[in-house]
Amino acid sequence: MTEKTVNKIALIGAGNVSIHLTKALYKAGKNIIQIFGRNTDEGNSLADNVSSEFITDLSKLTTDADLYIVSVPDNVLSEVLDKIYIPNKLIVHTSGSSEMEILKNTSDNYGVFYPLQTFTKTKKIDFQNIPVCIEANNKANFDLLFELAKCISKDVKIINSKQRTILHIAAVFACNFSNYFYSIADEILEKHDLSFDFIKPLIQETAQKILNHKPKEAQTGPAKRKDYQTIETHLKALSKFPEFKDIYEILSKKIINHNIKK
Amino acid sequence: MTEKTVNKIALIGAGNVSIHLTKALYKAGKNIIQIFGRNTDEGNSLADNVSSEFITDLSKLTTDADLYIVSVPDNVLSEVLDKIYIPNKLIVHTSGSSEMEILKNTSDNYGVFYPLQTFTKTKKIDFQNIPVCIEANNKANFDLLFELAKCISKDVKIINSKQRTILHIAAVFACNFSNYFYSIADEILEKHDLSFDFIKPLIQETAQKILNHKPKEAQTGPAKRKDYQTIETHLKALSKFPEFKDIYEILSKKIINHNIKK
Repeated sequence: MTEKTVNKIALIGAGNVSIHLTKALYKAGKNIIQIFGRNTDEGNSLADNVSSEFITDLSKLTTDADLYIVSVPDNVLSEVLDKIYIPNKLIVHTSGSSEMEILKNTSDNYGVFYPLQTFTKTKKIDFQNIPVCIEANNKANFDLLFELAKCISKDVKIINSKQRTILHIAAVFACNFSNYFYSIADEILEKHDLSFDFIKPLIQETAQKILNHKPKEAQTGPAKRKDYQTIETHLKALSKFPEFKDIYEILSKKIINHNIKK
Repeated sequence: MTEKTVNKIALIGAGNVSIHLTKALYKAGKNIIQIFGRNTDEGNSLADNVSSEFITDLSKLTTDADLYIVSVPDNVLSEVLDKIYIPNKLIVHTSGSSEMEILKNTSDNYGVFYPLQTFTKTKKIDFQNIPVCIEANNKANFDLLFELAKCISKDVKIINSKQRTILHIAAVFACNFSNYFYSIADEILEKHDLSFDFIKPLIQETAQKILNHKPKEAQTGPAKRKDYQTIETHLKALSKFPEFKDIYEILSKKIINHNIKK
């Protein structure tokens, strides 16, 4: 049996997602009774900030929480779950790409609580606007997670495991890969003693455009115009950056050749 | 001899850049005496909006302007310039990747007036925050362009042709390629009946992060974490999109292997 409302929460993991999620839940009045993490200043400081006990040994995991949130990198998730067995207790993970069923041997009550956002430790973020995607193994657990998600976000979504993987892939393209290109731009500019500040307005405008335009319609640039002359000029100038030159070439070809279907 | 202040302006070209630049100059009180373009509704309507004469034949180009702004795609720039000869008059182009010297046979007074931004016809934009990069073949012409740029932008930069190419390349990565990834995300989501709205907050946050963080430090995602398991899950799910799967694979490898130097 799970409780009718989630109040006491234990967090397993003290990384980027966990830090921001923990703070949001604490701010929403939830009782963060325990946090498990590696023994780092960061983990200890997080626990202090939310008046929680900090443990570094999973065998000391409390049995007293209404909800256990496992928020660790995907590649160690199975390993961590192997050490958790809390029958009757509600347990969720926060992963974009792991199926809900990965939790089935930990408890009879399980689900997913996936905030779709990019988290950086040092950057504050307003959870209210972050889509929180939830899934649960039965209606009662779903209701508990839905109610909890509503406490921290205006944008709660019902998403199954397959859909969540697709969302995560879309996020990798739109966020992780875009940010990697910001890095490339930064490095190229820095090597030529030009400030990254030059292109900050451009980056903001590019991101804001898609709020009201289909990205395909907002596409600009030499490849979109099939301007081979400029592409050649750029490839020549990129000869000092072979690792970026090939990306430029591949993506220009993609944009030229691939007519994204509407 | 050029005039001491630019007042009367002729625009050659009526595309994305020209439309926004013309409107900004008109709003700043400049007299747009003539616009050359192909005979389209758009060109005619632009000329109407700024009370200008619209011509579709370059042989009718006015001799009466203080400044001629050539704003056409790079791949037709040479061809257009071959038809222009206005000795003594000041002429500029707005291209990111064409050298200033491409203008030397059109006049003794020439320069570059390059607004570093992405322009979409249907999206309004505030020119005040757009970096305008200027270059000129002598001090007098430079002063004229500097003064003009100041009328429409708070952010006027002195940039030579080589630096401008680098800025343009950085812009292609940070803007054009990022937007292409927004398109890919949009298409993948649409194919799975998921709304692009899901990842709009993520795109905004990713762009805003770099205002105060080095993009390299803001990097997140499976590749950054060397999370091969999630990468494999994503590649498997992308099997229906071979044209995106290879990009995902190439960029993940780049992010894993390439430690961008600070």
